[in-house]
Amino acid sequence: MGILIKGALAVLPDGAAHATGRHDIYVDGTDIVGIDEAPQGFVCSQTIDASNRLAIPGLINAHTHTYMSMMRNVADDLSFADWLFGTIEPIEDRLEPEDAYWASLLSQIEMIKSGTTCFNDMQMHIGQTTRAVRESGMRAVICRGLVGGEYDLDERRIREALEERDAFANCDRLTFRLGPHAPYSCGPDYLRGVAEVAKREGMGIHIHIAESQTETDNMWADHHCTPVEYVRDAGIFDVPTIAAHCIRVSESDRAILAEHGVSVVTNPASNMKLGNGFAPVPELVEAGVNVCLGTDGAASNNAQNMFREMSLLALIHKGTHDVPQCVSADETLAMATRNAARALDLPTGSIEVGKKADLVLLDLDAPSLTPLNNAVAALSYSANGSEVTDVIIDGKVVLQDRTLLTIDEERVRHEIARICTRLGLA
Amino acid sequence: MGILIKGALAVLPDGAAHATGRHDIYVDGTDIVGIDEAPQGFVCSQTIDASNRLAIPGLINAHTHTYMSMMRNVADDLSFADWLFGTIEPIEDRLEPEDAYWASLLSQIEMIKSGTTCFNDMQMHIGQTTRAVRESGMRAVICRGLVGGEYDLDERRIREALEERDAFANCDRLTFRLGPHAPYSCGPDYLRGVAEVAKREGMGIHIHIAESQTETDNMWADHHCTPVEYVRDAGIFDVPTIAAHCIRVSESDRAILAEHGVSVVTNPASNMKLGNGFAPVPELVEAGVNVCLGTDGAASNNAQNMFREMSLLALIHKGTHDVPQCVSADETLAMATRNAARALDLPTGSIEVGKKADLVLLDLDAPSLTPLNNAVAALSYSANGSEVTDVIIDGKVVLQDRTLLTIDEERVRHEIARICTRLGLA
Repeated sequence: MGILIKGALAVLPDGAAHATGRHDIYVDGTDIVGIDEAPQGFVCSQTIDASNRLAIPGLINAHTHTYMSMMRNVADDLSFADWLFGTIEPIEDRLEPEDAYWASLLSQIEMIKSGTTCFNDMQMHIGQTTRAVRESGMRAVICRGLVGGEYDLDERRIREALEERDAFANCDRLTFRLGPHAPYSCGPDYLRGVAEVAKREGMGIHIHIAESQTETDNMWADHHCTPVEYVRDAGIFDVPTIAAHCIRVSESDRAILAEHGVSVVTNPASNMKLGNGFAPVPELVEAGVNVCLGTDGAASNNAQNMFREMSLLALIHKGTHDVPQCVSADETLAMATRNAARALDLPTGSIEVGKKADLVLLDLDAPSLTPLNNAVAALSYSANGSEVTDVIIDGKVVLQDRTLLTIDEERVRHEIARICTRLGLA
Repeated sequence: MGILIKGALAVLPDGAAHATGRHDIYVDGTDIVGIDEAPQGFVCSQTIDASNRLAIPGLINAHTHTYMSMMRNVADDLSFADWLFGTIEPIEDRLEPEDAYWASLLSQIEMIKSGTTCFNDMQMHIGQTTRAVRESGMRAVICRGLVGGEYDLDERRIREALEERDAFANCDRLTFRLGPHAPYSCGPDYLRGVAEVAKREGMGIHIHIAESQTETDNMWADHHCTPVEYVRDAGIFDVPTIAAHCIRVSESDRAILAEHGVSVVTNPASNMKLGNGFAPVPELVEAGVNVCLGTDGAASNNAQNMFREMSLLALIHKGTHDVPQCVSADETLAMATRNAARALDLPTGSIEVGKKADLVLLDLDAPSLTPLNNAVAALSYSANGSEVTDVIIDGKVVLQDRTLLTIDEERVRHEIARICTRLGLA
């Protein structure tokens, strides 16, 4: 039962860059099976007229916490410590597990409608995000957040993470990683234990590193090393690791990250909003680190829109370096797509035969895309996500003519309002 | 013939800040005539059910060049000099006057649909932007760009600017200023002449100042002063002045701007994109300067979306200062509304009785506004402009349920495509 996306202006990989041209894209099952040429035996069950559409690979949000969307705009203009320890964690302590299900669905609604097809989630409510992902149709990497401290609790969390992976092993849109939270919330022995489990189970790691100056200062005071060194010394980098933030990383830290093949997720909105500064993205790239892009949770962003994040990424480093060539639109798109696919070891992130059919169509009549002139530049510098009309994930149409086919949006809004009232946020 | 906007969640001024609450807003003629209470004799001809809408004052784009929209994404990742002198000016030289009309309409489509009701435009094609504004229904300040050098040409440009003002004096949505381009493109005698004309005619000034380090360096080398001092010494600040950019301004420059009541328009996207850096917005505010917000033209932004610009403004200074309290959401909204109204001397920019009815309604069901939690924060940190459903300008409904009532969008797209083909951009 194939889908033909006919005559799209498509952004395809062209070596390390991207090239734009008119193409027919053939989808069968979960995969892209042909470009401009139908494979033998292709049976077309649905043709999408894309003559007025820009087709791009689905965006990958490489670091978020989808369960946080009900905390959007509740704790703004606060320091990182006041935000996390003073406001967000006290609310988190009052969350019921099912709250995370509804909040994750809400985040996914915003992501799908703005062209994101896959996300890497650090979460703490077993089974809730997985349940939401199975229903939404998105692709996701689910990482159980782990905080080290109390032995029994630590054991239980790791056991739950493995049980969750086993329980959902039959959904191939879902993969699982372990999510030791951060160097400041996990002791070295605990990190070492998590690394051992990950190695044994063949799982990757998702961790926050060097998000704030305080973290780096405290690490130096307590352990006389950098957060990157601390995590490396605990053996985490011996398994495939994706590290969020990495703002306060020295030249030597960047070399360590590159040497160990650690992928870094930069989160410009969240990092600026919490007063944590700018990750050294051009310097990380220069060091050979694979950099990808994420929104972080809605409590610190406060959106889940990768177009906004691409715009920030493509602009801010030009600003900090006074260099207009810094982080080009082409690099930005790669960070929002194929770099993330590589970091998460997923066969997606580009429009190529053999890749998963994770595709996004944008309306070429949108004022922001008129005139288009340069499609790749337009994605970072002109688009805001509202141009998205159709989203295909894993070969299934999830958004059609701006209508979400998989999630009951009204029900989600109703449940979120109920949760906010209970939490005293509304 | 009044309009009642019923039961909106409205963002109203509350001293120097904003407060949000449920309100009925009464519009009659061009004005807001009542809040929660109909004025005597009010005859309601249209009721807008706003129970599911957020009502905000229309955004004011305080610095743009609407005629540049066909140059969106044609010259990216270039230095300011390569961008302006190497790419944009050669295209500008080939523009025909009517191109500016269609391009201005295109910019205005994007602005209206993303909640902008008023803009301050520096333009060079007499009568074209004014014609577009009369049709679109927007409020605008039209500033004839003036470049000093050849005496006859200079005389003609100033004469044309005054003729244009006189020709369109009967449209009260339009006001006129003189737009001497920049210190590097206008000699001191010319600036002095423009200031004299402005004083005599009771017009304000719109100028670019200190946009790049090169400008500041050259000014020092050639005149041994700063761009701000140069413009002040030419008498420009003796008339009401709105100055775009002001990136490279010293503490002493900031004091000069404050002392002369010069309003500054910051343009974060354009400034970063051209590698010009960040305007010292917190320091300008600290010095007592009235700061407002603009997109600049689509050739250097590359959008005309004030929500994207508010998001940038609210985030980047937190990043450069490592201070999460820097440029709050509340200050950002003021810079995008009432500060600009003050700078442009227009009775708009806030939802208050007696102000012009320039109002924007946003869909509270939009995923990005769910949950809302804090409306003012949501405008800068969560919204992207696609939430806008209705726009009222000067008391007239211009956008209704996302449909533009004043401009034939398809025709504009057609004409823009034709122009791009002629210019070799498409």
